[in-house]
Amino acid sequence: MVTLSDRVTSLHISPIRRVAALLAEANQRKEIISFGGGAPSLPPPKEVSEDIIRRMSEDSQGTTVYSGTRGYLDLRRLVADDWARHQGETYDPETEVILSEGATEAIFAAFHSILNKNDEVILADPTYLGYPEAAQLAGGRIVRLPASVEDQYQPSLEVLKSLVSRRTKVVVVLSPDNPTGRILRLPFVKGLLDLAVDNDFWIIYDATYRDIAYGENIQPKLTSFPGAHERVISVGSFSKEASVPGLRLGYALGPPDAIDAIEKVKQYTTLAPNTLSQRAMVRFLTGDVKEKYLREIVIPTYRARRDFMEKAILRYLPDAATVRPDGAFYFFVDVRKYLAAMERTDNELCDRLLKQKGVVAIPGSYFGDKGAGHLRLTFVSEPEGRIDLGMKRIGEFVFSYAFSLAK
Amino acid sequence: MVTLSDRVTSLHISPIRRVAALLAEANQRKEIISFGGGAPSLPPPKEVSEDIIRRMSEDSQGTTVYSGTRGYLDLRRLVADDWARHQGETYDPETEVILSEGATEAIFAAFHSILNKNDEVILADPTYLGYPEAAQLAGGRIVRLPASVEDQYQPSLEVLKSLVSRRTKVVVVLSPDNPTGRILRLPFVKGLLDLAVDNDFWIIYDATYRDIAYGENIQPKLTSFPGAHERVISVGSFSKEASVPGLRLGYALGPPDAIDAIEKVKQYTTLAPNTLSQRAMVRFLTGDVKEKYLREIVIPTYRARRDFMEKAILRYLPDAATVRPDGAFYFFVDVRKYLAAMERTDNELCDRLLKQKGVVAIPGSYFGDKGAGHLRLTFVSEPEGRIDLGMKRIGEFVFSYAFSLAK
Repeated sequence: MVTLSDRVTSLHISPIRRVAALLAEANQRKEIISFGGGAPSLPPPKEVSEDIIRRMSEDSQGTTVYSGTRGYLDLRRLVADDWARHQGETYDPETEVILSEGATEAIFAAFHSILNKNDEVILADPTYLGYPEAAQLAGGRIVRLPASVEDQYQPSLEVLKSLVSRRTKVVVVLSPDNPTGRILRLPFVKGLLDLAVDNDFWIIYDATYRDIAYGENIQPKLTSFPGAHERVISVGSFSKEASVPGLRLGYALGPPDAIDAIEKVKQYTTLAPNTLSQRAMVRFLTGDVKEKYLREIVIPTYRARRDFMEKAILRYLPDAATVRPDGAFYFFVDVRKYLAAMERTDNELCDRLLKQKGVVAIPGSYFGDKGAGHLRLTFVSEPEGRIDLGMKRIGEFVFSYAFSLAK
Repeated sequence: MVTLSDRVTSLHISPIRRVAALLAEANQRKEIISFGGGAPSLPPPKEVSEDIIRRMSEDSQGTTVYSGTRGYLDLRRLVADDWARHQGETYDPETEVILSEGATEAIFAAFHSILNKNDEVILADPTYLGYPEAAQLAGGRIVRLPASVEDQYQPSLEVLKSLVSRRTKVVVVLSPDNPTGRILRLPFVKGLLDLAVDNDFWIIYDATYRDIAYGENIQPKLTSFPGAHERVISVGSFSKEASVPGLRLGYALGPPDAIDAIEKVKQYTTLAPNTLSQRAMVRFLTGDVKEKYLREIVIPTYRARRDFMEKAILRYLPDAATVRPDGAFYFFVDVRKYLAAMERTDNELCDRLLKQKGVVAIPGSYFGDKGAGHLRLTFVSEPEGRIDLGMKRIGEFVFSYAFSLAK
């Protein structure tokens, strides 16, 4: 029999796929309340839709040809300008910026560009569930930096120091974070950069949720510290800020040798980014389309839902512990007290919530061992009435289940 | 200093990048005649443009959300139907079809799904320049199967047999081929399948140019032979047949375990295919849009240009050898007699053609060692008048250069 490679047979069934299966079921049954997805629930700015319509009407051929592997220079310029405005560091659009098929491809190519076999990759625990296997596909060994609700999901610089070794090749930071919503604080970021300089490792700074932030805590300008430019590969995405995950467009910024290496990998993963998506995002970053969309629509809508869900968690799950997210789309809720009473895991609870209550929640253990006993609840997928209904159902289920055991 | 991975530092400067640099120069200078590109030069069908416009007008949100990693089932159904109609083999759209960011991603993920370190990958020489490094990134060792103009660029089954070893993990076939335009003949395909069954290796069948065929020779139905279904991973693309390379959409068909493995890899390369592109290609494969577009526009236009360029080659380069392509976009022209008189390589000739004559041609050596001494000339990028002018300039340059040396 023809056989598959060891690398794919050793990949676990991915949490991404388990999440996708949950969401597919949610999509088919409209009565299901979904706190599961990681996608925006708003239409993109009308300027973006109109730009796609205009381009397909006026120049369908020009809009469907190949761009180069790095993508169009005009969009790379706008990405660099946007980064400089927000993050205070200037990148050369010719040599230090590349467009990618979502942040996913940028992260994959970055890992392939820097990791040799058994190089260590330090990841928060919990954090985005796509990192460990992407790093392992490039030969990396995963080391986890724990974060817990008691510390507001902020990782400890002292613990990070104890994890750094001669084998440390890269530390990945996601801020605002998925699933916890925390923005990294300035002292940690400064300390991380000092460590990186002293120990000569890379930082991958995943800024996917950079612009989905609610204003209470400000994103540190990680790339503008001394020593950052030559050792930080920043990754971003239009998926969240422009509400266009289906357009699959992201980018990486970094020193020329790293961007050059990412381009080499990208030649074989996808060859070139989508032309129509690039054109649409040129419109998004031109004038004040982005700023106006975030200020008038995205942030107010999501902030209101966040605050609404926070109240619902307090009301329906009073013994849970969580932290109001600084940014991104999620509450990461520690339900260990309930699970102990129920004698169940987070996985089992999520299965039952879907089957018996028609509510999708994502098990925290998908995001790392330290996420066990938590639920990730997206607050942007449902309007407020359904947020309330869904949280009420979770509360009812948890209480009745625990009560039935206690009898 | 922070360092890059061995895998990227050992990647040669890719021929893809050298081609891209040539084409970028051609695009900036309109007076340059380009025989370089590998992209269609027609607008996509108007039904496709209109569908994108309609969707962005009516449901911009629904058209920009994530699809699952395998892509929408309705498009996978249409891809399977189209394959069955053309290739006579049925694939289950649920378990045996996955959409990808161009054929490029499907090939990358297929290599990652089947190759362990030092597994051997047999590739034609010459053939598509993206395969060797994609296979090497997955750990493969390249073995080349020569083809020459004397044999109409048809590889020899006897030579293939001599190359197959215990280490052979996959044979890649591209038909119609880039750069030679040859369609594989039935006896070779049958023999290849027998070899694959006897020696238990995979076949990757790249059908990117499947529908760009001029009718003199018919594409064998490779996947419909006994033993094919469980050991052939077929890869296709909408780039050429719908004239939409910028929409980055392709697909793979194969046995469920292979498609499952490709999905695992794709979760980390790009996560999901572009939603808008998928919707547009649903329109392309619905009704007779595709058949009508190919029959009425693509094939007649390209066939006329092919026949025109063939005459121009005979007229301006009478000592060159080539084969009229069965399909795809290219003449692969053996100019070794001229190069010998000029004391130059194909690389040097192409450099000079661009600088001194404003004509882009791609050096044959980019496609493998056996391609040395050849030029790849695309016949779809320019209208007939400019094909004549460009070929005339090549002929003039070659003759005057050789003449000046002979003096």
